Amino acid sequence: MTVDPHPWAAELDTLCAQVWARLVRGVGDRHAPARHPTLATVSPEGWPEARTVVLRAADPVAGSVDIHTDLRSAKVASLRANHRAALHVWDASAHLQTRLEVTVSILSGPEVAAIWARVPDASRQSYGTMPAPGQHIASALEYAKQPEAASFAVLRCTVQAMDVVHLGPHHRRARFDRGTHWAGQWLAP
Amino acid sequence: MTVDPHPWAAELDTLCAQVWARLVRGVGDRHAPARHPTLATVSPEGWPEARTVVLRAADPVAGSVDIHTDLRSAKVASLRANHRAALHVWDASAHLQTRLEVTVSILSGPEVAAIWARVPDASRQSYGTMPAPGQHIASALEYAKQPEAASFAVLRCTVQAMDVVHLGPHHRRARFDRGTHWAGQWLAP
Repeated sequence: MTVDPHPWAAELDTLCAQVWARLVRGVGDRHAPARHPTLATVSPEGWPEARTVVLRAADPVAGSVDIHTDLRSAKVASLRANHRAALHVWDASAHLQTRLEVTVSILSGPEVAAIWARVPDASRQSYGTMPAPGQHIASALEYAKQPEAASFAVLRCTVQAMDVVHLGPHHRRARFDRGTHWAGQWLAP
Repeated sequence: MTVDPHPWAAELDTLCAQVWARLVRGVGDRHAPARHPTLATVSPEGWPEARTVVLRAADPVAGSVDIHTDLRSAKVASLRANHRAALHVWDASAHLQTRLEVTVSILSGPEVAAIWARVPDASRQSYGTMPAPGQHIASALEYAKQPEAASFAVLRCTVQAMDVVHLGPHHRRARFDRGTHWAGQWLAP
Protein backbone atom coordinates (compact mmCIF):
# COMPACT_ATOMS: atom_id res chain seq x y z
CA MET A 1 0.00 0.00 0.00
CA THR A 2 1.33 3.43 -0.97
CA VAL A 3 1.06 6.22 1.58
CA ASP A 4 -0.02 9.53 0.06
CA PRO A 5 2.79 11.97 0.93
CA HIS A 6 0.50 14.98 0.48
CA PRO A 7 -2.93 14.05 1.89
CA TRP A 8 -3.67 17.76 2.38
CA ALA A 9 -4.07 18.15 -1.40
CA ALA A 10 -7.27 16.09 -1.48
CA GLU A 11 -9.63 18.63 0.11
CA LEU A 12 -10.10 22.35 -0.46
CA ASP A 13 -9.84 23.39 3.19
CA THR A 14 -6.66 21.41 3.92
CA LEU A 15 -5.10 22.58 0.66
CA CYS A 16 -5.77 26.21 1.56
CA ALA A 17 -4.36 25.72 5.06
CA GLN A 18 -1.25 24.07 3.62
CA VAL A 19 -0.59 27.04 1.35
CA TRP A 20 -0.68 29.43 4.29
CA ALA A 21 1.44 27.14 6.48
CA ARG A 22 4.12 27.12 3.79
CA LEU A 23 4.00 30.90 3.37
CA VAL A 24 4.45 31.32 7.13
CA ARG A 25 7.35 28.86 7.02
CA GLY A 26 8.96 30.97 4.29
CA VAL A 27 9.11 33.96 6.64
CA GLY A 28 10.95 32.05 9.35
CA ASP A 29 13.06 29.57 7.36
CA ARG A 30 15.49 30.99 4.81
CA HIS A 31 15.70 27.60 3.10
CA ALA A 32 11.95 27.21 2.58
CA PRO A 33 10.76 27.72 -1.02
CA ALA A 34 8.29 30.43 0.01
CA ARG A 35 11.21 32.47 1.35
CA HIS A 36 11.85 33.71 -2.19
CA PRO A 37 8.66 34.25 -4.20
CA THR A 38 8.66 35.84 -7.62
CA LEU A 39 6.82 39.16 -7.63
CA ALA A 40 5.14 40.14 -10.90
CA THR A 41 3.97 43.68 -11.61
CA VAL A 42 3.00 45.75 -14.66
CA SER A 43 5.33 48.59 -15.65
CA PRO A 44 3.94 52.06 -16.38
CA GLU A 45 4.53 51.20 -20.08
CA GLY A 46 2.44 48.02 -19.80
CA TRP A 47 5.23 45.42 -19.65
CA PRO A 48 4.90 42.56 -17.19
CA GLU A 49 7.91 42.38 -14.86
CA ALA A 50 9.07 39.62 -12.53
CA ARG A 51 11.83 39.46 -9.93
CA THR A 52 12.80 37.45 -6.87
CA VAL A 53 11.84 39.00 -3.54
CA VAL A 54 12.13 37.96 0.10
CA LEU A 55 8.99 37.15 2.08
CA ARG A 56 9.13 39.16 5.32
CA ALA A 57 5.69 38.53 6.86
CA ALA A 58 2.65 36.33 6.28
CA ASP A 59 -0.63 36.76 8.15
CA PRO A 60 -3.15 33.96 7.42
CA VAL A 61 -5.90 35.72 9.39
CA ALA A 62 -5.66 39.04 7.57
CA GLY A 63 -4.73 37.26 4.35
CA SER A 64 -1.70 39.45 3.70
CA VAL A 65 2.04 39.16 3.14
CA ASP A 66 4.86 41.73 3.37
CA ILE A 67 7.90 42.40 1.18
CA HIS A 68 10.62 44.96 1.87
CA THR A 69 12.16 47.04 -0.91
CA ASP A 70 13.96 50.24 -1.81
CA LEU A 71 11.42 53.03 -2.21
CA ARG A 72 13.25 54.16 -5.39
CA SER A 73 13.15 50.74 -7.11
CA ALA A 74 11.34 50.16 -10.40
CA LYS A 75 8.83 47.88 -8.73
CA VAL A 76 7.60 50.75 -6.55
CA ALA A 77 7.11 52.96 -9.61
CA SER A 78 5.18 50.14 -11.25
CA LEU A 79 3.01 49.58 -8.19
CA ARG A 80 2.24 53.30 -7.98
CA ALA A 81 0.89 53.09 -11.54
CA ASN A 82 -0.92 49.75 -11.02
CA HIS A 83 -1.28 48.42 -7.48
CA ARG A 84 -2.17 44.91 -8.64
CA ALA A 85 0.57 42.29 -8.39
CA ALA A 86 1.10 38.53 -8.42
CA LEU A 87 3.28 36.42 -6.17
CA HIS A 88 4.45 33.02 -7.36
CA VAL A 89 6.05 30.16 -5.41
CA TRP A 90 7.05 26.78 -6.80
CA ASP A 91 7.59 24.37 -3.90
CA ALA A 92 9.34 21.39 -5.49
CA SER A 93 9.25 19.10 -2.44
CA ALA A 94 5.48 19.61 -2.04
CA HIS A 95 4.88 19.54 -5.82
CA LEU A 96 2.92 22.71 -5.18
CA GLN A 97 2.59 25.89 -7.24
CA THR A 98 1.08 28.81 -5.35
CA ARG A 99 -0.04 31.93 -7.20
CA LEU A 100 -1.36 34.89 -5.22
CA GLU A 101 -3.30 37.78 -6.74
CA VAL A 102 -2.62 40.75 -4.48
CA THR A 103 -3.28 44.46 -4.18
CA VAL A 104 -0.33 46.34 -2.77
CA SER A 105 -0.05 49.27 -0.37
CA ILE A 106 3.35 51.02 -0.41
CA LEU A 107 4.24 51.93 3.18
CA SER A 108 7.20 54.15 4.06
CA GLY A 109 8.46 56.80 6.46
CA PRO A 110 7.00 57.03 9.99
CA GLU A 111 4.48 54.24 9.35
CA VAL A 112 7.29 51.69 8.91
CA ALA A 113 9.70 53.10 11.54
CA ALA A 114 8.94 50.24 13.93
CA ILE A 115 9.67 47.65 11.20
CA TRP A 116 12.88 49.46 10.14
CA ALA A 117 14.06 49.39 13.76
CA ARG A 118 13.97 45.58 13.65
CA VAL A 119 15.82 45.21 10.30
CA PRO A 120 19.35 43.86 11.02
CA ASP A 121 22.30 46.02 9.99
CA ALA A 122 23.37 43.56 7.28
CA SER A 123 19.92 43.66 5.68
CA ARG A 124 19.77 47.46 5.84
CA GLN A 125 22.52 47.52 3.20
CA SER A 126 19.79 46.75 0.65
CA TYR A 127 18.01 50.07 1.15
CA GLY A 128 19.72 53.27 0.05
CA THR A 129 22.13 52.26 -2.73
CA MET A 130 23.63 55.32 -4.49
CA PRO A 131 22.87 55.85 -7.29
CA ALA A 132 19.35 54.44 -7.03
CA PRO A 133 18.69 50.85 -8.18
CA GLY A 134 18.54 50.56 -11.97
CA GLN A 135 20.46 53.75 -12.74
CA HIS A 136 23.21 53.55 -15.37
CA ILE A 137 26.77 53.37 -14.01
CA ALA A 138 30.01 53.48 -15.98
CA SER A 139 31.50 50.33 -14.47
CA ALA A 140 30.08 47.42 -12.51
CA LEU A 141 31.01 48.55 -9.01
CA GLU A 142 30.49 52.31 -9.23
CA TYR A 143 27.88 52.39 -6.52
CA ALA A 144 27.84 52.70 -2.75
CA LYS A 145 25.60 51.22 -0.09
CA GLN A 146 24.30 53.89 2.23
CA PRO A 147 21.62 52.40 4.48
CA GLU A 148 18.87 54.94 4.71
CA ALA A 149 15.54 54.69 6.51
CA ALA A 150 14.05 57.14 4.01
CA SER A 151 14.65 54.59 1.23
CA PHE A 152 12.95 51.75 3.08
CA ALA A 153 9.51 50.62 1.96
CA VAL A 154 7.17 47.83 3.00
CA LEU A 155 4.94 46.39 0.28
CA ARG A 156 1.86 45.19 2.14
CA CYS A 157 0.18 42.71 -0.18
CA THR A 158 -3.48 41.98 0.47
CA VAL A 159 -4.33 38.61 -1.04
CA GLN A 160 -7.46 38.81 -3.19
CA ALA A 161 -7.29 35.32 -4.65
CA MET A 162 -5.04 32.24 -4.77
CA ASP A 163 -4.61 29.77 -7.63
CA VAL A 164 -3.01 26.55 -6.40
CA VAL A 165 -1.80 23.55 -8.40
CA HIS A 166 -0.66 20.27 -6.87
CA LEU A 167 1.17 17.86 -9.16
CA GLY A 168 0.57 14.32 -7.94
CA PRO A 169 -0.46 11.00 -9.50
CA HIS A 170 -3.51 13.09 -10.38
CA HIS A 171 -3.02 16.83 -10.75
CA ARG A 172 -5.33 19.09 -8.76
CA ARG A 173 -5.98 22.80 -9.18
CA ALA A 174 -8.09 25.08 -7.02
CA ARG A 175 -8.93 28.75 -6.72
CA PHE A 176 -9.64 30.52 -3.44
CA ASP A 177 -11.16 34.01 -3.30
CA ARG A 178 -11.35 36.53 -0.49
CA GLY A 179 -14.88 37.38 -1.67
CA THR A 180 -16.12 33.88 -0.85
CA HIS A 181 -14.14 33.70 2.40
CA TRP A 182 -11.63 31.31 0.79
CA ALA A 183 -14.24 28.56 0.35
CA GLY A 184 -12.42 27.33 -2.75
CA GLN A 185 -13.37 26.00 -6.17
CA TRP A 186 -11.77 23.10 -8.06
CA LEU A 187 -10.53 23.93 -11.56
CA ALA A 188 -9.42 21.74 -14.43
CA PRO A 189 -5.62 21.72 -14.27
CA MET B 1 44.11 33.31 -2.32
CA THR B 2 40.43 32.95 -3.08
CA VAL B 3 39.42 31.72 -6.50
CA ASP B 4 36.42 33.59 -7.93
CA PRO B 5 33.82 30.89 -8.63
CA HIS B 6 32.02 33.09 -11.16
CA PRO B 7 34.69 34.99 -13.15
CA TRP B 8 32.18 35.39 -16.01
CA ALA B 9 30.27 37.96 -13.92
CA ALA B 10 33.06 40.53 -14.14
CA GLU B 11 32.61 41.56 -17.79
CA LEU B 12 29.52 42.37 -19.83
CA ASP B 13 30.28 40.02 -22.72
CA THR B 14 31.05 36.99 -20.56
CA LEU B 15 28.03 37.69 -18.38
CA CYS B 16 25.76 37.80 -21.43
CA ALA B 17 27.26 34.57 -22.79
CA GLN B 18 26.79 32.86 -19.42
CA VAL B 19 23.10 33.75 -19.36
CA TRP B 20 22.58 32.13 -22.76
CA ALA B 21 24.67 29.08 -21.87
CA ARG B 22 22.45 28.50 -18.83
CA LEU B 23 19.25 28.93 -20.85
CA VAL B 24 20.50 26.36 -23.35
CA ARG B 25 21.38 24.03 -20.48
CA GLY B 26 17.82 24.41 -19.18
CA VAL B 27 16.43 22.96 -22.40
CA GLY B 28 18.56 19.83 -22.22
CA ASP B 29 18.86 19.25 -18.47
CA ARG B 30 15.65 18.83 -16.51
CA HIS B 31 17.49 19.59 -13.28
CA ALA B 32 18.95 22.91 -14.45
CA PRO B 33 17.31 26.02 -12.92
CA ALA B 34 16.50 27.46 -16.35
CA ARG B 35 14.42 24.37 -17.08
CA HIS B 36 11.54 25.97 -15.19
CA PRO B 37 11.33 29.74 -15.66
CA THR B 38 8.46 31.80 -14.34
CA LEU B 39 6.45 33.38 -17.16
CA ALA B 40 4.76 36.69 -16.36
CA THR B 41 1.99 38.14 -18.53
CA VAL B 42 -0.73 40.78 -18.18
CA SER B 43 -4.33 39.55 -18.12
CA PRO B 44 -6.96 41.19 -20.35
CA GLU B 45 -8.20 42.88 -17.13
CA GLY B 46 -4.74 44.31 -16.41
CA TRP B 47 -3.60 41.93 -13.68
CA PRO B 48 -0.03 40.67 -13.76
CA GLU B 49 0.10 36.85 -13.79
CA ALA B 50 2.99 34.47 -13.15
CA ARG B 51 3.31 30.71 -13.48
CA THR B 52 6.00 28.06 -13.86
CA VAL B 53 6.64 26.91 -17.43
CA VAL B 54 9.08 24.49 -19.08
CA LEU B 55 11.79 25.84 -21.36
CA ARG B 56 11.64 23.86 -24.62
CA ALA B 57 14.11 25.70 -26.86
CA ALA B 58 16.73 28.45 -26.60
CA ASP B 59 18.46 30.01 -29.60
CA PRO B 60 21.29 32.39 -28.65
CA VAL B 61 21.79 33.50 -32.26
CA ALA B 62 18.17 34.46 -32.91
CA GLY B 63 17.77 35.57 -29.31
CA SER B 64 14.61 33.56 -28.77
CA VAL B 65 13.21 30.87 -26.48
CA ASP B 66 10.20 28.54 -26.84
CA ILE B 67 7.54 27.38 -24.38
CA HIS B 68 4.80 24.85 -25.07
CA THR B 69 1.28 25.29 -23.74
CA ASP B 70 -2.38 24.46 -24.20
CA LEU B 71 -3.89 26.82 -26.75
CA ARG B 72 -6.95 27.24 -24.50
CA SER B 73 -4.96 28.26 -21.39
CA ALA B 74 -5.36 31.64 -19.71
CA LYS B 75 -1.81 32.62 -20.64
CA VAL B 76 -2.67 32.40 -24.34
CA ALA B 77 -5.70 34.65 -23.85
CA SER B 78 -3.48 37.12 -22.01
CA LEU B 79 -0.82 37.04 -24.72
CA ARG B 80 -3.43 37.64 -27.40
CA ALA B 81 -4.43 40.83 -25.56
CA ASN B 82 -0.83 41.88 -24.78
CA HIS B 83 2.02 40.03 -26.48
CA ARG B 84 4.64 41.37 -24.07
CA ALA B 85 5.87 38.95 -21.41
CA ALA B 86 8.67 38.44 -18.93
CA LEU B 87 10.64 35.30 -18.14
CA HIS B 88 12.40 34.98 -14.81
CA VAL B 89 15.03 32.47 -13.67
CA TRP B 90 16.74 32.40 -10.29
CA ASP B 91 19.83 30.19 -10.52
CA ALA B 92 20.86 29.64 -6.91
CA SER B 93 24.16 27.86 -7.61
CA ALA B 94 25.31 30.68 -9.92
CA HIS B 95 23.83 33.40 -7.66
CA LEU B 96 22.27 34.67 -10.86
CA GLN B 97 18.89 36.24 -11.54
CA THR B 98 17.96 36.41 -15.22
CA ARG B 99 14.99 38.47 -16.37
CA LEU B 100 14.01 38.45 -20.03
CA GLU B 101 11.67 40.97 -21.65
CA VAL B 102 10.09 39.16 -24.57
CA THR B 103 7.46 39.62 -27.25
CA VAL B 104 5.53 36.45 -27.92
CA SER B 105 4.18 34.87 -31.10
CA ILE B 106 1.52 32.20 -30.54
CA LEU B 107 2.12 29.38 -33.02
CA SER B 108 -0.35 26.52 -33.53
CA GLY B 109 -1.83 24.15 -36.10
CA PRO B 110 0.17 23.25 -39.22
CA GLU B 111 3.04 25.59 -38.35
CA VAL B 112 3.86 23.53 -35.23
CA ALA B 113 3.07 20.07 -36.67
CA ALA B 114 6.76 19.20 -36.91
CA ILE B 115 7.31 20.15 -33.25
CA TRP B 116 4.19 18.24 -32.11
CA ALA B 117 5.49 15.15 -33.93
CA ARG B 118 8.53 15.18 -31.63
CA VAL B 119 6.60 15.67 -28.35
CA PRO B 120 6.74 12.38 -26.39
CA ASP B 121 3.43 10.64 -25.61
CA ALA B 122 3.79 11.32 -21.88
CA SER B 123 4.21 15.06 -22.50
CA ARG B 124 1.29 15.18 -24.90
CA GLN B 125 -0.98 14.53 -21.92
CA SER B 126 -0.55 18.20 -21.06
CA TYR B 127 -2.35 19.44 -24.17
CA GLY B 128 -6.06 18.78 -24.54
CA THR B 129 -7.43 18.46 -20.98
CA MET B 130 -11.25 18.36 -20.93
CA PRO B 131 -12.71 20.64 -19.76
CA ALA B 132 -10.17 23.29 -20.74
CA PRO B 133 -7.57 24.43 -18.17
CA GLY B 134 -9.04 26.78 -15.57
CA GLN B 135 -12.68 25.75 -16.06
CA HIS B 136 -14.74 25.08 -12.92
CA ILE B 137 -15.26 21.41 -12.06
CA ALA B 138 -17.46 19.95 -9.31
CA SER B 139 -14.76 17.79 -7.76
CA ALA B 140 -10.98 17.70 -8.01
CA LEU B 141 -10.61 14.91 -10.55
CA GLU B 142 -13.56 15.56 -12.87
CA TYR B 143 -11.40 16.06 -15.90
CA ALA B 144 -9.87 13.87 -18.57
CA LYS B 145 -6.63 14.06 -20.50
CA GLN B 146 -7.24 13.82 -24.23
CA PRO B 147 -4.01 14.60 -26.07
CA GLU B 148 -4.94 16.77 -29.00
CA ALA B 149 -2.69 18.38 -31.59
CA ALA B 150 -5.27 21.12 -32.07
CA SER B 151 -4.74 22.22 -28.45
CA PHE B 152 -0.96 22.42 -28.79
CA ALA B 153 0.68 25.83 -28.99
CA VAL B 154 4.27 27.02 -29.11
CA LEU B 155 4.99 30.39 -27.52
CA ARG B 156 7.94 31.75 -29.45
CA CYS B 157 9.48 34.41 -27.25
CA THR B 158 11.71 36.97 -28.96
CA VAL B 159 14.03 38.45 -26.37
CA GLN B 160 14.02 42.26 -26.53
CA ALA B 161 16.09 42.90 -23.41
CA MET B 162 17.70 41.07 -20.47
CA ASP B 163 18.19 42.37 -16.92
CA VAL B 164 20.78 40.28 -15.10
CA VAL B 165 21.82 40.41 -11.44
CA HIS B 166 24.77 38.50 -9.99
CA LEU B 167 24.98 38.32 -6.21
CA GLY B 168 28.62 38.00 -5.20
CA PRO B 169 30.94 39.65 -2.68
CA HIS B 170 29.96 42.71 -4.76
CA HIS B 171 26.60 42.61 -6.50
CA ARG B 172 26.55 43.35 -10.21
CA ARG B 173 23.61 44.22 -12.43
CA ALA B 174 23.52 44.71 -16.18
CA ARG B 175 21.02 45.29 -18.94
CA PHE B 176 21.38 43.97 -22.47
CA ASP B 177 19.18 45.20 -25.33
CA ARG B 178 18.52 43.76 -28.76
CA GLY B 179 18.59 47.30 -30.15
CA THR B 180 22.25 47.75 -29.18
CA HIS B 181 23.17 44.22 -30.29
CA TRP B 182 23.43 43.07 -26.66
CA ALA B 183 26.39 45.37 -25.95
CA GLY B 184 25.30 45.71 -22.33
CA GLN B 185 25.13 48.48 -19.73
CA TRP B 186 26.00 48.23 -16.04
CA LEU B 187 23.24 49.32 -13.64
CA ALA B 188 23.25 50.07 -9.93
CA PRO B 189 21.96 46.90 -8.26
